[in-house]
Amino acid sequence: MTTTSQAGRWSYPLAAEFGPRDVTRDLAEFVATSGIGTGVLAVQLVGSTGAITTIEYEDGALADLRRALDALAPANDDYAHNARWGDGNGFSHVRSSLLKTSLAIPVVDGALALGSWQQVVVLNLDNRRRTREVVAVVVGSVKHEARSVKREA
Amino acid sequence: MTTTSQAGRWSYPLAAEFGPRDVTRDLAEFVATSGIGTGVLAVQLVGSTGAITTIEYEDGALADLRRALDALAPANDDYAHNARWGDGNGFSHVRSSLLKTSLAIPVVDGALALGSWQQVVVLNLDNRRRTREVVAVVVGSVKHEARSVKREA
Amino acid sequence: MTTTSQAGRWSYPLAAEFGPRDVTRDLAEFVATSGIGTGVLAVQLVGSTGAITTIEYEDGALADLRRALDALAPANDDYAHNARWGDGNGFSHVRSSLLKTSLAIPVVDGALALGSWQQVVVLNLDNRRRTREVVAVVVGSVKHEARSVKREA
Repeated sequence: MTTTSQAGRWSYPLAAEFGPRDVTRDLAEFVATSGIGTGVLAVQLVGSTGAITTIEYEDGALADLRRALDALAPANDDYAHNARWGDGNGFSHVRSSLLKTSLAIPVVDGALALGSWQQVVVLNLDNRRRTREVVAVVVGSVKHEARSVKREA
Repeated sequence: MTTTSQAGRWSYPLAAEFGPRDVTRDLAEFVATSGIGTGVLAVQLVGSTGAITTIEYEDGALADLRRALDALAPANDDYAHNARWGDGNGFSHVRSSLLKTSLAIPVVDGALALGSWQQVVVLNLDNRRRTREVVAVVVGSVKHEARSVKREA
Repeated sequence: MTTTSQAGRWSYPLAAEFGPRDVTRDLAEFVATSGIGTGVLAVQLVGSTGAITTIEYEDGALADLRRALDALAPANDDYAHNARWGDGNGFSHVRSSLLKTSLAIPVVDGALALGSWQQVVVLNLDNRRRTREVVAVVVGSVKHEARSVKREA
């Protein structure tokens, strides 16, 4: 069984405060292209004012999640980060730290182990529009080995 | 050093709203059987109305966690998801997105890097009893290599 | 392409209730020393009363995160865990379960995929000073292969 790894990177222009994007298809294609059948995918929304999680990607659930984040760290509250740096995105930092910016997902039979109604979503939580970078690495065993697979050395 | 990967899958019938299950032993046995000594385990509770985390698995801490989740997303609140789909589990989706459905755990000396009082728990957060699927993949280096370990090709 | 894995372990004496420590440099050096170019890093704060996440590691954002955790599970609230065990750290268990104790981070070009203002922070959330153990495993492909890299067997 040959094990290998592969890295991918994507850029998404996202709305302010709660800019969601369904990245499931991009990640699924990346995993399929890697040739890995059994492995682990790690995904990171790079930066300290974004987040990544899973959700049923429909307007209702997204609005509900946004409301929950608003309650956890209201945008117009007072933040020590804002007092020191004046950039007004203290709420973004708190939300990002609570929700976190990375995920690990098992890969089985060359596919992400997700439910039918479960998507991977990245969120721009900053107080301005931003293009966010998403980085992923998949590590695991090659699915269908053929003669053309290089011998390890 | 030979690296390899292995996948596992389990089904657990779980109670509604906060149906917890300690899956530590199942995961530990899976890792031991894989033969991997140093690696990464990714675990996923499949679906958008469940969650996975770690906790000291005793009734008190579980009750405290349940209360915290009730406060984060009350079951009887109004949810945009419910208004659109009428299935009444809007709170389940919010709790699942906040808590997340996957974990990555280091494997060292063939064992999960957990504390003595720390267990891996999966939660059914849906508004009805459900049998939930848990999928895991471990990737890493084989612990004690023997002649019987196949040469990579 | 040779894949390999490596484990690391660190101990940090940390303050009570919200004892933060920036572990980014230790993890970065560990990954660099491993020789892995493309991989997945799993990090675990061992135990059920700590946590790990990412943040812009400056006093303002840290104070804001602490306040958010205080609201999620106030230290002086009543907890079922305390009623049963009398150790007074029920809030620590709830905060740990909500925030979680592990992270997975992609490794690309031998470096952690983090933003310029994004650090990995471990937190002691217990109600007393503690020395906390952090365990990490990196799995992936060796960066620059040389003759000295051992053939797999």
